[in-house]
Amino acid sequence: MDVQAWWAERLPRVERELDAVLPAAAEPPQTLHAAMRHLVFPGGKRLRPAFAMAAAEAVGAPARAALPAAVGVELVHAYSLIHDDLPCMDDDDERRGRPTVHVAFGEAVAVLAGDALQALAFQTVAAARPAESAARVVHALAAAAGSRALVGGQVDDLAFDPENRDTAHIESVHARKSGALIAVSVSGGARLAGADDALCERLHAFGLDVGVAFQIQDDVLDEGEDDACSLVRAIGREGAAARAEELLSRALARLEDLGSGAEPLRELARYAVRREK
Amino acid sequence: MDVQAWWAERLPRVERELDAVLPAAAEPPQTLHAAMRHLVFPGGKRLRPAFAMAAAEAVGAPARAALPAAVGVELVHAYSLIHDDLPCMDDDDERRGRPTVHVAFGEAVAVLAGDALQALAFQTVAAARPAESAARVVHALAAAAGSRALVGGQVDDLAFDPENRDTAHIESVHARKSGALIAVSVSGGARLAGADDALCERLHAFGLDVGVAFQIQDDVLDEGEDDACSLVRAIGREGAAARAEELLSRALARLEDLGSGAEPLRELARYAVRREK
Repeated sequence: MDVQAWWAERLPRVERELDAVLPAAAEPPQTLHAAMRHLVFPGGKRLRPAFAMAAAEAVGAPARAALPAAVGVELVHAYSLIHDDLPCMDDDDERRGRPTVHVAFGEAVAVLAGDALQALAFQTVAAARPAESAARVVHALAAAAGSRALVGGQVDDLAFDPENRDTAHIESVHARKSGALIAVSVSGGARLAGADDALCERLHAFGLDVGVAFQIQDDVLDEGEDDACSLVRAIGREGAAARAEELLSRALARLEDLGSGAEPLRELARYAVRREK
Repeated sequence: MDVQAWWAERLPRVERELDAVLPAAAEPPQTLHAAMRHLVFPGGKRLRPAFAMAAAEAVGAPARAALPAAVGVELVHAYSLIHDDLPCMDDDDERRGRPTVHVAFGEAVAVLAGDALQALAFQTVAAARPAESAARVVHALAAAAGSRALVGGQVDDLAFDPENRDTAHIESVHARKSGALIAVSVSGGARLAGADDALCERLHAFGLDVGVAFQIQDDVLDEGEDDACSLVRAIGREGAAARAEELLSRALARLEDLGSGAEPLRELARYAVRREK
């Protein structure tokens, strides 16, 4: 199947929803709202929303059922990029060819824009129906964004010793910093689409494997030169690429009993892990 | 009634719950978890948890019904203090007689500890039951923490022109920066205790007035010298104190039909607005 065409049909719905939940840049405080939008539009690959919507279809619902999860995860991702770019963290001046938020709006507004995007993520998910599913997805998203996942992974990434070749620790950083949010995209999208607990857990495990493999591929494409915490640096390019393929296979095996409705989800996983840029 | 004695009986439950939801300082990443705890223990007045638990009793439920709201709001409050203290914001080295989080743990960890505390707040509230109420309180807490309330208030406070004497704008900053979280303490506590929509809205309005009056009293006690955005600076100490009393009266009038179970809530409001330190 042509996953690019599949996504091109569904992406506009996500863009409209992101635009609808974000306050207008003209609404005061204008500098804050402009800063919040600066990182969200134009977006990157929108990989997390795509996973959420593909998961809804994989469990037999229309993609739009996953919209609150798709938008919530993307907003958490956006906030984390703003904070990661800060001078006290990675100190990046540019992202996607544009000035980072702290360069364009100042450091205080960048911290606060990230803070407000995180709150908005939970507000968006909490408005989903039924409320039972909304509360479950808020809980899962908060866990994925918290000290035991996203934030803890960033702390360990910042403190990573480049001489460390402990592949389990490297994969643990990837699982927390990248895997957890992709996992909750998939399981949260499925949850809002009505999937039961067992299926949500299975899809969560799928997303976690794909997320780690995605991050390994990131390192493979960078040839591991930029990041200290990189499987390429630890075991070489070939070994890292093989490990990513292994994780992809394990992930896909978890979807074996799902029918053709899961094909976009499978194709997205293949794209995420095998992409060339 | 003796509200101090009332609170002394209930406070340990809040302390235990905060301790239970926060990862141990010994859990890796230890620096992150120690930093998260640094601001939470020892706490300040725990005014927001007290309001949440008093609201539960005001609507006829045991105080413990409000625990997830009490803890969730306190964690948002804690995260906001860590970020407000950062060098790029208020640049404070000390809080409550101890080094601020960025002084003790570094700036990156301070940003991340705040981020993780915000996520933990929503995770805690999302675990409340019934799920319908949990989702409503997550939504209200996220709105109170977002760009239209807490974060927007902080942006306007940082940008406040000390020559500005616009009392409506000053009160709008107070309402967003202080009032919104106190309002959601009260309405969220009542919501988890089973109060209906109309009563929750009324209690929210009560909390908003009390929160603004609390912040005005803060300025009165500081004699308005520290903060640019201060009603004392705009209209003088006497006028500001009178305005705080006016807001307190308006707030208390909203509770007139509630019985003696609302007495702790009334007394907390009087304490918050009339305290001498």
